[in-house]
Amino acid sequence: MARETLVDSRQEILRTAARLFQQRGYDATSMNDVAAALKLSKGGLYHHFHSKDEILFEIMNHAMEITQERVLNPVRSIADPEQRLRALIRLHIEVVLSLRDREITVMLHENHPLPPSLRKRINSRKKEYVHFLEKLVAEVQSKSRRPHAAKDRVSPRAAAFALLGMINWIYQWYKPEGDLQAQNLIPQFTDLIFGGILA
Amino acid sequence: MARETLVDSRQEILRTAARLFQQRGYDATSMNDVAAALKLSKGGLYHHFHSKDEILFEIMNHAMEITQERVLNPVRSIADPEQRLRALIRLHIEVVLSLRDREITVMLHENHPLPPSLRKRINSRKKEYVHFLEKLVAEVQSKSRRPHAAKDRVSPRAAAFALLGMINWIYQWYKPEGDLQAQNLIPQFTDLIFGGILA
Repeated sequence: MARETLVDSRQEILRTAARLFQQRGYDATSMNDVAAALKLSKGGLYHHFHSKDEILFEIMNHAMEITQERVLNPVRSIADPEQRLRALIRLHIEVVLSLRDREITVMLHENHPLPPSLRKRINSRKKEYVHFLEKLVAEVQSKSRRPHAAKDRVSPRAAAFALLGMINWIYQWYKPEGDLQAQNLIPQFTDLIFGGILA
Repeated sequence: MARETLVDSRQEILRTAARLFQQRGYDATSMNDVAAALKLSKGGLYHHFHSKDEILFEIMNHAMEITQERVLNPVRSIADPEQRLRALIRLHIEVVLSLRDREITVMLHENHPLPPSLRKRINSRKKEYVHFLEKLVAEVQSKSRRPHAAKDRVSPRAAAFALLGMINWIYQWYKPEGDLQAQNLIPQFTDLIFGGILA
């Protein structure tokens, strides 16, 4: 059986390419490098992806799909807004800390130049997530037992961006051997956000 | 007067290089490109910097100096911890939003490969900032009029990383024409953090 047939998933290519892009930089990594790392012929790689831009776009798209499947879809069915927000924070942190997905999801934050049409598609998926989070924060605030006038509260939009910043920034400081791990980070970031949006 | 003498500051080179690195990618930008953008001869550029690595290191180092001068130094003299933290949040957001400094400071977050010895020097400056912030959060918490047992509170370390994430993430979503601008962003992020660390 040829090696080519062993690469049964485009995901393996995406994961390997993502790792190379992070190690060497996007521009310094050629299609040849990606093929070589996968022990694929160049033709074998081009059979799956026509260009490096396409690979980068598919990595980012895959990262958004991971977010959709592991964070958004599971929380949609939770009726209580407070529980829905708690679950979203937990699941999003788990995705960010996931060893398996990190090399894919971290690529979302690199501002590599993508052709405008592809960039637009990624940005519109990112916006959907922000809007979902914004509506959720507003729901939590309006159902709070300590209702404040809206003008005295942190706006759902500022809170949504703050939460995304806190969580997406984790990859900048996280160390697998450090004190802050999922089990203490999740409750602390949850308390911080709830303290902040309901204060 | 030769063009060379007009480039009176290394800062102009750093700012131009930072802009090119962001537009085209670090790897895709050559020393020739940097020289050309500044209308400098290649020799003129090498007179100031010996390599692209050196330029990248000096950009990051300059970004840390900006943070030192515009955020850390001004807040050190503020006696009251709560006021000190409020000032730090405000000044840090102002640096991140500063049009003039943004092309420099945003480079801090790109994970371009730097030789380990240079990377270490940048990381140790970043760590100093985290430690300063951590101690400040602890002071604010211990002087709060609503004292909680330390175990029930968000740890100063988690709070420090959360705050840095919120603020350093701004460049990912900020739009000069958007609703969230310094004057409403600063009080909202301040309320969110104080609500979170004192809840």
